[in-house]
Amino acid sequence: MKNDPFFEPVSGAVLPRFAGVPSFMRLPVVEDNHDRIGDVDIGIVGVPWDGGTTNRPGARHGPRQLRDLSTMIRATHPVSHISPFKMVNCADMGDCPINPADLNDTMERVTAFYKDVKSRGITPMTAGGDHLVSLPVLRGIASDAPVGMIHFDAHTDLFDSYFDGFKYTHGTPFRRAIEEGLLDPKRVVQIGIRGTMYDGEDIEWGRANGVTIITMDEFADQTIADVMKQARSIVGDQPTYVSFDIDCIDPAFAPGTGTPEIGGFTTREAQLLVRQLKGLNLIGADLVEVSPPFDESGNTAWVGVSMMFEILCMLAVAVDQRN
Amino acid sequence: MKNDPFFEPVSGAVLPRFAGVPSFMRLPVVEDNHDRIGDVDIGIVGVPWDGGTTNRPGARHGPRQLRDLSTMIRATHPVSHISPFKMVNCADMGDCPINPADLNDTMERVTAFYKDVKSRGITPMTAGGDHLVSLPVLRGIASDAPVGMIHFDAHTDLFDSYFDGFKYTHGTPFRRAIEEGLLDPKRVVQIGIRGTMYDGEDIEWGRANGVTIITMDEFADQTIADVMKQARSIVGDQPTYVSFDIDCIDPAFAPGTGTPEIGGFTTREAQLLVRQLKGLNLIGADLVEVSPPFDESGNTAWVGVSMMFEILCMLAVAVDQRN
Amino acid sequence: MKNDPFFEPVSGAVLPRFAGVPSFMRLPVVEDNHDRIGDVDIGIVGVPWDGGTTNRPGARHGPRQLRDLSTMIRATHPVSHISPFKMVNCADMGDCPINPADLNDTMERVTAFYKDVKSRGITPMTAGGDHLVSLPVLRGIASDAPVGMIHFDAHTDLFDSYFDGFKYTHGTPFRRAIEEGLLDPKRVVQIGIRGTMYDGEDIEWGRANGVTIITMDEFADQTIADVMKQARSIVGDQPTYVSFDIDCIDPAFAPGTGTPEIGGFTTREAQLLVRQLKGLNLIGADLVEVSPPFDESGNTAWVGVSMMFEILCMLAVAVDQRN
Amino acid sequence: MKNDPFFEPVSGAVLPRFAGVPSFMRLPVVEDNHDRIGDVDIGIVGVPWDGGTTNRPGARHGPRQLRDLSTMIRATHPVSHISPFKMVNCADMGDCPINPADLNDTMERVTAFYKDVKSRGITPMTAGGDHLVSLPVLRGIASDAPVGMIHFDAHTDLFDSYFDGFKYTHGTPFRRAIEEGLLDPKRVVQIGIRGTMYDGEDIEWGRANGVTIITMDEFADQTIADVMKQARSIVGDQPTYVSFDIDCIDPAFAPGTGTPEIGGFTTREAQLLVRQLKGLNLIGADLVEVSPPFDESGNTAWVGVSMMFEILCMLAVAVDQRN
Amino acid sequence: MKNDPFFEPVSGAVLPRFAGVPSFMRLPVVEDNHDRIGDVDIGIVGVPWDGGTTNRPGARHGPRQLRDLSTMIRATHPVSHISPFKMVNCADMGDCPINPADLNDTMERVTAFYKDVKSRGITPMTAGGDHLVSLPVLRGIASDAPVGMIHFDAHTDLFDSYFDGFKYTHGTPFRRAIEEGLLDPKRVVQIGIRGTMYDGEDIEWGRANGVTIITMDEFADQTIADVMKQARSIVGDQPTYVSFDIDCIDPAFAPGTGTPEIGGFTTREAQLLVRQLKGLNLIGADLVEVSPPFDESGNTAWVGVSMMFEILCMLAVAVDQRN
Amino acid sequence: MKNDPFFEPVSGAVLPRFAGVPSFMRLPVVEDNHDRIGDVDIGIVGVPWDGGTTNRPGARHGPRQLRDLSTMIRATHPVSHISPFKMVNCADMGDCPINPADLNDTMERVTAFYKDVKSRGITPMTAGGDHLVSLPVLRGIASDAPVGMIHFDAHTDLFDSYFDGFKYTHGTPFRRAIEEGLLDPKRVVQIGIRGTMYDGEDIEWGRANGVTIITMDEFADQTIADVMKQARSIVGDQPTYVSFDIDCIDPAFAPGTGTPEIGGFTTREAQLLVRQLKGLNLIGADLVEVSPPFDESGNTAWVGVSMMFEILCMLAVAVDQRN
Repeated sequence: MKNDPFFEPVSGAVLPRFAGVPSFMRLPVVEDNHDRIGDVDIGIVGVPWDGGTTNRPGARHGPRQLRDLSTMIRATHPVSHISPFKMVNCADMGDCPINPADLNDTMERVTAFYKDVKSRGITPMTAGGDHLVSLPVLRGIASDAPVGMIHFDAHTDLFDSYFDGFKYTHGTPFRRAIEEGLLDPKRVVQIGIRGTMYDGEDIEWGRANGVTIITMDEFADQTIADVMKQARSIVGDQPTYVSFDIDCIDPAFAPGTGTPEIGGFTTREAQLLVRQLKGLNLIGADLVEVSPPFDESGNTAWVGVSMMFEILCMLAVAVDQRN
Repeated sequence: MKNDPFFEPVSGAVLPRFAGVPSFMRLPVVEDNHDRIGDVDIGIVGVPWDGGTTNRPGARHGPRQLRDLSTMIRATHPVSHISPFKMVNCADMGDCPINPADLNDTMERVTAFYKDVKSRGITPMTAGGDHLVSLPVLRGIASDAPVGMIHFDAHTDLFDSYFDGFKYTHGTPFRRAIEEGLLDPKRVVQIGIRGTMYDGEDIEWGRANGVTIITMDEFADQTIADVMKQARSIVGDQPTYVSFDIDCIDPAFAPGTGTPEIGGFTTREAQLLVRQLKGLNLIGADLVEVSPPFDESGNTAWVGVSMMFEILCMLAVAVDQRN
Repeated sequence: MKNDPFFEPVSGAVLPRFAGVPSFMRLPVVEDNHDRIGDVDIGIVGVPWDGGTTNRPGARHGPRQLRDLSTMIRATHPVSHISPFKMVNCADMGDCPINPADLNDTMERVTAFYKDVKSRGITPMTAGGDHLVSLPVLRGIASDAPVGMIHFDAHTDLFDSYFDGFKYTHGTPFRRAIEEGLLDPKRVVQIGIRGTMYDGEDIEWGRANGVTIITMDEFADQTIADVMKQARSIVGDQPTYVSFDIDCIDPAFAPGTGTPEIGGFTTREAQLLVRQLKGLNLIGADLVEVSPPFDESGNTAWVGVSMMFEILCMLAVAVDQRN
Repeated sequence: MKNDPFFEPVSGAVLPRFAGVPSFMRLPVVEDNHDRIGDVDIGIVGVPWDGGTTNRPGARHGPRQLRDLSTMIRATHPVSHISPFKMVNCADMGDCPINPADLNDTMERVTAFYKDVKSRGITPMTAGGDHLVSLPVLRGIASDAPVGMIHFDAHTDLFDSYFDGFKYTHGTPFRRAIEEGLLDPKRVVQIGIRGTMYDGEDIEWGRANGVTIITMDEFADQTIADVMKQARSIVGDQPTYVSFDIDCIDPAFAPGTGTPEIGGFTTREAQLLVRQLKGLNLIGADLVEVSPPFDESGNTAWVGVSMMFEILCMLAVAVDQRN
Repeated sequence: MKNDPFFEPVSGAVLPRFAGVPSFMRLPVVEDNHDRIGDVDIGIVGVPWDGGTTNRPGARHGPRQLRDLSTMIRATHPVSHISPFKMVNCADMGDCPINPADLNDTMERVTAFYKDVKSRGITPMTAGGDHLVSLPVLRGIASDAPVGMIHFDAHTDLFDSYFDGFKYTHGTPFRRAIEEGLLDPKRVVQIGIRGTMYDGEDIEWGRANGVTIITMDEFADQTIADVMKQARSIVGDQPTYVSFDIDCIDPAFAPGTGTPEIGGFTTREAQLLVRQLKGLNLIGADLVEVSPPFDESGNTAWVGVSMMFEILCMLAVAVDQRN
Repeated sequence: MKNDPFFEPVSGAVLPRFAGVPSFMRLPVVEDNHDRIGDVDIGIVGVPWDGGTTNRPGARHGPRQLRDLSTMIRATHPVSHISPFKMVNCADMGDCPINPADLNDTMERVTAFYKDVKSRGITPMTAGGDHLVSLPVLRGIASDAPVGMIHFDAHTDLFDSYFDGFKYTHGTPFRRAIEEGLLDPKRVVQIGIRGTMYDGEDIEWGRANGVTIITMDEFADQTIADVMKQARSIVGDQPTYVSFDIDCIDPAFAPGTGTPEIGGFTTREAQLLVRQLKGLNLIGADLVEVSPPFDESGNTAWVGVSMMFEILCMLAVAVDQRN
């Protein structure tokens, strides 16, 4: 149902934006035992976990800071005039249970949580956490058949292993997801790849397996419209996931992240890229790698939630199309 | 009812302390329309308002940051072994409605909120906000008869007016409260007063009206036990309010506040002072003047919530005695 | 008189730039009782007030930090080679009196101050303060007839009211100014508008009343030259005010502000925009919303004073033309 | 050999303290393949690992920041006039190999490293890392027979498990060490314990097993001399380990740590405590839980290395006695 | 003349404390060409120079930040009730000219400035700058005969030279001053000395020459009253200078300084120490080594100006006695 | 010799990037007494000195912070696929000896160091320090004949003198270098010049002497390819030095510097500029003016080392061509 008042964010006229217990975008908190859980169309879920981080940790604190800053988001998109909160029922589903001491246990808990989300027909918008989070999320929502993905990132996250054979880090989720048949590599597009390389094996493997990798330099030689036209053509109208690593954006705009690379997207470019997702058959999305200890000011989280709102508008259109 | 599982904080074993929507001390959020509101003994209330601040603003952001840091508080006091969450039913009552654009309207909204709290038999623990907040709170809960107060602060907040006659600032609440008959000045004790003075008229007025003012220098010449023995004797066993301005603590420990004064309490001293409130007939308390923009790290808020827990234990004993 | 040595900034060769009591751009402080007040052409005025701020406060501390950073400004513009301090007599007029506890009183004091400025024939360059400051300034200098305005901002500040009818906030000054006949809406251009919207009523009202609103997306589709050609054509050669909200600039460049919106101007774009004001009949300008508690480093204030110097060059040309 | 010039720190007269590749206290870097490894008496070792951290991570970055700040340490103790670098041969042994992705693998690597250190007759001074580091260190150096320990900390780190049975976190190392026979609980003293409690089971278990726990309140009721006289008596003249968690110090002095508790030691108290270790049969020491992302200023690391130097003087005396 | 309204600080009732061009303690700026210069009793002078700093620079920015924070100082001392601004005529004399590129030139400029100050009968209160500043100040005001000094510091600043023979750094001013006959070493007391030592030659030289050095440990073993009784007895009633290095205070309270040493004074102890200077024949004082880049928050500068006010009260008493 | 394993950086698979004593890019430290010094092709040298800084100091701390952040650099360039560490032998040569108290002594020490570097046939990559560093470096490596220079900067550094005739500051190195015949002004190109001007004499002098100055505005009117084509044509195939002042980059990207100017290069633009140096006859390079106290986060240093890697790739190609 559209325009359900229960699913309206708290208005700034009722309670100023700096006030109140901070839920994502001031939406109602509807966990799985809530009596309105059956009416949720899009569930925003925090996954406060950085167990896959190989260098600078802290993304486990991401959902908390993102919730705080998200209370400054208003109701309507300034260009498309989409009001996602009116178009579909959005809710904060709380944080997915995790175990900071045990990687495998956490992976299983996250997968179970997202299987449940999927079984309820809810489209998830995830706030990480580090990028390894995407793997158990995909295990939860893409277990039926491989899905496509549009992936904004400075890094491919297609590495094979770290530290002498360790398979699960925030640099490997999509290699695993392709190996496990969760992603169809021919329907995967990666945009924004840059930064010094170990040896390039990740890019070679990706391209050999059919992944479309658009590096920052290739991006810069085209218009945003052309880049996204190509991306849209590759994923087509089949189910597609969106993964947005905040480090695709230049660290001047988003310094609070574990693996910054200079020469990245401006926020303006990031906005224009995401707005071109409109009409795709989006089945879920994540925004990951906001690391609050590396930006106590909250400026990075503000970029993060601003991008989450951009993505949410695209998810709302997709859900609306499917309804 | 004691040990009601509904009123237990979320355990760190179930959800790590950095996870989840942050309510005060991970307690359930029970606003006035919640069906368990009738069972609340102590309600923690945010008043996100700094409309009385004459110099460095930002205390309006206090409740949000205090909630965030409060998730690191555990269940039991290390010295007294009091478990307030087991002893009585505690809840986060959300933030009191305020109007950042209108001082008088806000004063009325806060008073109305606290009248309701009082009428429900709930003992309020308030998180400010600047110190002017205490005035409408007292109007709400002390309207029947003047109450006593133990007041920890670097400043008396007994000034008459600012800026050519303006009567309502964070430097004047207790002058107003005494004038309005909300506080019985003969049962008011102020501890920790220090800092350069305008002219000392506030102290003179206070003493002339019967307020007991223990300056930092007078405090330092006595034992904490003696200071608090005197304070306890002054307030006696009649209804007493506790007001704790974070700036009573030295700015090395709590820099995030609007009007710091050097030479203040250590946190250790503050803890020992508050622990001597045990057994008094406490009817409410506040902790005010945490200003997050002046300490983005959250260290000051951590001091603040640690002191809130100390005070909460004392309130729980008082409520338990009254029950 | 041009090249009056009294009105020269203190040279870095005489006193290093980090030394000395910091006046705006190291100019002489000439308050209204100074014997050279009659010779001032352009007066830089601080209005340290954030009484209209609905969310993150702190702009009251703006003038102080702007003065500090402004001591790094040198004498001559690198592109136009304009030396405003040689072209006309510039002075720091100190801070306008305000009352942080009383909105109406402050509005009246500011208006009175600017009426006096106008009566002396001084062109004011204001350093805010939040954006509500512009309203009493306009009341002071535009009381004879409606003026035009070129307005750089992320927000229209054309809202009707906040918090159930409150009419005076930093989101409403230009609606009030149009209603009061201070601004001629047909000669008002707003550039850089973006960010999530409440409901768009502000934009609708503005356009319905003749205001030209150039959103960030419309800006991005044109050259800066074209945008400013349009703006110049709209304001024409009649008296025109310039209002520059620091939040028109992207928060990566200027994070220290209360209501940041991603996807904003680079400082380079902002410079090019302002340089196109040359030759307009400018009667005053302001730069507002620098909030030091949200950027203690002073980087935002450095952007702010760098833009103030750009605007000052344009004012100097205008004053020189009128002389 | 004493006074070996190879083992002298680089003098500030030769290279200013802010210059040069930063080794611990400007000592030579002597890793295990270095030809002078056989001459090292005390080896300072970094263990850059926070795999046991249950809440705020970042201690993995500790050794790097500690090395940086340690370059401000000079040669001689101001009170005892001990010159540890002249008394025995001290060296920076680099960082112990760890695997950030695998807890068990890391534990084994650390243990192997310290077995090697022990076999070379080197007394280790460890810079963590989180407190779980102490367990594999003890496995490496205390495998022959249980040792005693003087432990400065806000927490007992005697918990049984976290998150439903996980046995290895920074809250459990000493329970494991006692269970494994690495520590003799009757020769273990813990000083500074404070902070809100889960349920007190850790303290009960410790006391039931013979551990002497001196809480902050018990500490405050005695002189430092008396506290340490008791501690010295308990550990006696048998081999004793020193473990110093930076969070024993109050967060005003050392905010950059994962689990701060207010009401802690001043640095002055911490210095006086450590100076009373003189003459004990110390076989190793660690300083843990400095978390740079929570204090980018380096102030906490400066406290950390200042305490490391205090401890190092005590180790030098012990080594000198054994030589 | 007492109570001259010209020399009153701007009242917070007239202009809020965050407003206005920031002079020291809101006093009038009276430079040497001002027509009231002849009426100044105590002149507060900035010396924005850190040319003697051997490690972490930035004290050149001290006077600016101290002025900013000093606007929060009010009129009257809370314990002694001294109102220095009423007792004698105080003024901000601006910043002494310096040459950041040339040590010798700067030394000469500072000396010349202070000779002029002395010749006018003005008692100077200096805000540094690094500690080398004290040498040219003493050359300016102590050229007639050696003076005594009470010196609060973590370091003796009695070193002979740095970097192979360089004689003028912030570690050497008082060795030079004694050699030059500016200070009478038998009337010099140093309090608070601590921190790791190079070799102790500075202390040996000082004691051999008659300087009384009270280390932090010696201080801690006595009451403040006893320490200051000894100090007062040593300087007697002859002319005495006060030099206050902010690093005598513990870095938890004052982190923004170049050479912090843990285990220092609390601000409370520092206040009590300075209050015991009452009645001495004080001819000048300085407060040095506040380094803003190492504490952008201004908290250290706030400690600095709070101590400057304490010292100023003592200077006012001394001036009043001489008048 | 290529691919010498001794000169390989430590791999992140062996030791995580946050671990270990931080040398530049994890290369071996090979000082002049090391037995492999004869095999070094490119030596990275720190010059920790800011003795030429006229305003905000701190660049002396640059090399330390650059080393720390440089450990995040990987092995291969993402666009050119150059692996400089495989192509030639790179090493960290430590920090050049300097004397922070004596400008002339430091200049001589630096020159002597670089003469030695040159005599060994090593191509130096310098990490400053302030920009005056470039002068003694050029004296060391360009003493045979004038060299050309491509200079990226916001400022010309062609000033004559400061503070009444002082000739050696970070604003004058290249005027001196041209006067001394170290640089051939006709083969000098400066790119990125902007910011308010004193009087423009520096630019006039430069152009009169044949220096090509491309201001930011002139840069913006051309493609990067065209700008660099012109630059390449001017320096030709003769020996050329590269000097990269971090302040050429916009302060949003690199705030930690002493003299920021808004409207600068993005890091993306800076990367593209440097990549056009390929194939030039480069004999050395420097990256200067990173000032850690003005950016404790390390973000600016990260930009700095990312640009150092870009430049290093260009140096490696040049060395490889000469070998």
